[in-house]
Amino acid sequence: MKKSLDGWRREIDAIDEKIVRLLIRRARSAVAIGKKKREQASPVRDSSREKEVLRHIRKVNKGPLSGKALTGIYRRIISACLKLQKKAED
Amino acid sequence: MKKSLDGWRREIDAIDEKIVRLLIRRARSAVAIGKKKREQASPVRDSSREKEVLRHIRKVNKGPLSGKALTGIYRRIISACLKLQKKAED
Repeated sequence: MKKSLDGWRREIDAIDEKIVRLLIRRARSAVAIGKKKREQASPVRDSSREKEVLRHIRKVNKGPLSGKALTGIYRRIISACLKLQKKAED
Repeated sequence: MKKSLDGWRREIDAIDEKIVRLLIRRARSAVAIGKKKREQASPVRDSSREKEVLRHIRKVNKGPLSGKALTGIYRRIISACLKLQKKAED
């Protein structure tokens, strides 16, 4: 059976709940990484690791989102997680 | 056992794979919605629905990401999905 507009919106709401929960888990992992880096006296920002993350997500991508669009979303995610790492330092 | 820095990074890579797969599903649902809207001759952009989506994700959020940070990420996601809907119109 074909989904109605409302049916598709409910599908998106369900997907969004999963995405938000994963973003929360990602943010918590980033905070844990921030603590590890502090213990090791490493800098919080690591541009080679950021490039690795972006390469990885583009590899997993199968469309219809373009690599560019996905990279744009991920730059936001990485930046939000980085801010949390820095905040955890205070 | 406490995770090492590499262990946490592997955790993030695994989370990212799940996030990307969900973003792909979300984008596909958005394209399906775009088609429905075209059938019904409705405008692609619906700002009340966008507000509803943002309210919904902020409700699911439990931190450590702030509502503002999560909203910033989601504006990017919504905008990328909207571009796909418009593209599907051509």
